Amino acid sequence: MNIEMIRAAALRLEGHARVTPLLNAPLLDRIAGRRVMVKAECLQWTGSFKYRGGWAAVSALRGAAGVLAFSSGNHAQGVALAAAQHGLPAVIVMPSDAPSVKIDNTRAYGAEVVLYDRAREDRDAIGAALAAERGLVLVRPYDEPEVIAGQGSVGLEIAAQFGGAAEVLTCCGGGGLTSGVALACEGRFRVRTVEPTGFDDVARSLALGERVRNATLSGSICDAIVTPTPGEITFPIMQRLCGPGLVVSDDEALRAMVLAFQHLRIVLEPGGAVALAAALFRDDLPETVIAVASGGNVDPAVFAAAMARFG
Amino acid sequence: MNIEMIRAAALRLEGHARVTPLLNAPLLDRIAGRRVMVKAECLQWTGSFKYRGGWAAVSALRGAAGVLAFSSGNHAQGVALAAAQHGLPAVIVMPSDAPSVKIDNTRAYGAEVVLYDRAREDRDAIGAALAAERGLVLVRPYDEPEVIAGQGSVGLEIAAQFGGAAEVLTCCGGGGLTSGVALACEGRFRVRTVEPTGFDDVARSLALGERVRNATLSGSICDAIVTPTPGEITFPIMQRLCGPGLVVSDDEALRAMVLAFQHLRIVLEPGGAVALAAALFRDDLPETVIAVASGGNVDPAVFAAAMARFG
Repeated sequence: MNIEMIRAAALRLEGHARVTPLLNAPLLDRIAGRRVMVKAECLQWTGSFKYRGGWAAVSALRGAAGVLAFSSGNHAQGVALAAAQHGLPAVIVMPSDAPSVKIDNTRAYGAEVVLYDRAREDRDAIGAALAAERGLVLVRPYDEPEVIAGQGSVGLEIAAQFGGAAEVLTCCGGGGLTSGVALACEGRFRVRTVEPTGFDDVARSLALGERVRNATLSGSICDAIVTPTPGEITFPIMQRLCGPGLVVSDDEALRAMVLAFQHLRIVLEPGGAVALAAALFRDDLPETVIAVASGGNVDPAVFAAAMARFG
Repeated sequence: MNIEMIRAAALRLEGHARVTPLLNAPLLDRIAGRRVMVKAECLQWTGSFKYRGGWAAVSALRGAAGVLAFSSGNHAQGVALAAAQHGLPAVIVMPSDAPSVKIDNTRAYGAEVVLYDRAREDRDAIGAALAAERGLVLVRPYDEPEVIAGQGSVGLEIAAQFGGAAEVLTCCGGGGLTSGVALACEGRFRVRTVEPTGFDDVARSLALGERVRNATLSGSICDAIVTPTPGEITFPIMQRLCGPGLVVSDDEALRAMVLAFQHLRIVLEPGGAVALAAALFRDDLPETVIAVASGGNVDPAVFAAAMARFG
C-alpha cells in the first residue's frame, strides 16, 4: 500500500465518486469549544465512503464473472452500486441483524443478498463456497489494497479542502478508511481512530502494539464499524501513522447524530457519528479537528429515538 | 436587477458562502420516474440560501449603524450571521409563531430578536419605528436588489454544476430566490416556482398576469415560504422568465422531507422541501429537473412526526 495507489484510485474515481463537502457551523464550534470541520461522506453515493472503495476495487477487476462481498451494510451498498454501474452481478453476504434499510437498499441497487446468523454461522465459509461455485471475485471490506486506495481518496480531498493545522478523526472498523486517509494525509495531518465503548479493538491494539480482538461483535448501535480485529494490511499502517485511539459512548454517538441534524443538516448513522462525537466531547484534542462523518444509513426508528432523547 | 449585479454579489460571496453540492440518488430517481438533481442549500451557512442574500446586502452597506430585518426565521439567521461577521449589530423582527429553532438560532448568532403577533400587529410599522430610532438599515427579505443578487448566486452555481437540459424548481415565497435564479439561469434553464396548497399567490399571480394576495398567512407547515404576495421587484422578473407555478400539498412536502432524509441524507424543513416534492410527485415536468432544497431549519417535533407518518 502506498500513496501512488491512492492517487491512481482517485483518478479512476473522478466523475464517479462525489467530492463531498467539508462542512462546519459556528453554533457547533461553540458546543465543541473548538473548530470542527466535518467531511460529509454521508452525502457520498449509497450514503457512505464505502462507495469509493467499492468502485476502486470493481474498476480494477479484469474478466471477473461477478463480485462477492461480506458486509453489515455500507460496504454492501457501495459494492452493489459499483458492480451494477460496471454491468457485473454482485452477491452480498450480510448478517441477518443488519439494519433493514441497508439490506433493502443493497437489493435495490440490484445485488443478490445472502443473509447469515452473525453469532452461529461463518461468513468466510459461506463466501468461499459462493465464490468457488459461481466464479465470483471477493471484494474484502477493508483488508484489500484497492479498497484502501479508494477510501484514501477521502484523505486527498480533505488535504485539498483544508489548509490549516488539524487532526483528522475517523470512524474506525477494520481500518480501511483510516489507513487510506492516514496514507493520503501523511506529513499533513495526524489521524486518530474513534470507536464505540466495548468495541475498541483498534484503540487497544494501537496501545498494545499488537492486534487484539473484540470480546463480542453484537450489541452495538454502531453496526457499521464493529469488526473483530484490525486488518492485517491496515494495522501496520495505522501503527505507523495514527495517534492513540479514541473511544466514545453510544450516547455520545447519538448526541453527535442529533447535533449534526440540527447544526449541519446532514443525516448520520451512529457508527458514522463517532468521529464527530469525539470532536465534540473529548478534551484531549487540538484546536481544530476534521471529523469524517462516514455514513448516513440509519434506520428511521433509531434516528427517531435519538431525536426524542437528545433533540 | 440584472445579471451583472448577480455576478458582482457572487464575487463578494466567494470564500464566505458555501458552494453547495448538487446531489442525486439512483433510488430517488426511481421513485420520481425522472432524474432529480437537488441543490442542497440546506447545507449553506445558517441552514438556508438566505445567508447568501444576507451577506450580499450587508457587504454592500457603507456606514450603517446596524441592520434590521423582518423574517419568520431563515432570512433572520442569514442576516444575523452576516451582520455579526461584519461587526454590525442586527435587530430582527420575527413573528411569535416562528419555529423556536429559528428564533433560538437567530439569537445565538448574536442578533436582538423582537417578536410580534403575525395576525394583529404590523411588522412594517414596528420595523420603521426601530429603524428610525436606532439608525438601522432595513434589509428586506426579497424585494431588495442586493438580496436578489445574492440569492441569484445559487443559479450561477447550478449552471456551473450541471451541463444538460433541465428545468429548475424553486421553493417560492416572495420570489427573491426565484427571480435571482431565473436571471442567473436565463437562456440555460427555465425556472418553475413551487408553493404549498392554499398559499399559492405566486402561481395565481403568474396565471392572472397581476399580483394577487394569499387569503391568509397562518396555518401552513411551510412557514419559510408563506408571504402575502409576490414582490414588486421580483414579480416582473418571474413573469418574464418563469413557467407556470406548481403547487404541492403539505403531505407531499413532508414525504419529500422524509425521502431526502432516506436517500440524500440531508435535513429539509417543509418549506425547503416543496420543490423536491414537485420533482418527485408532479407528472407534467421534463425528464430532468433540478430542485433547490432551500432550507433545513426544521423543528425536531415536526420532523419526528413526519418520520413517524412517512418513514
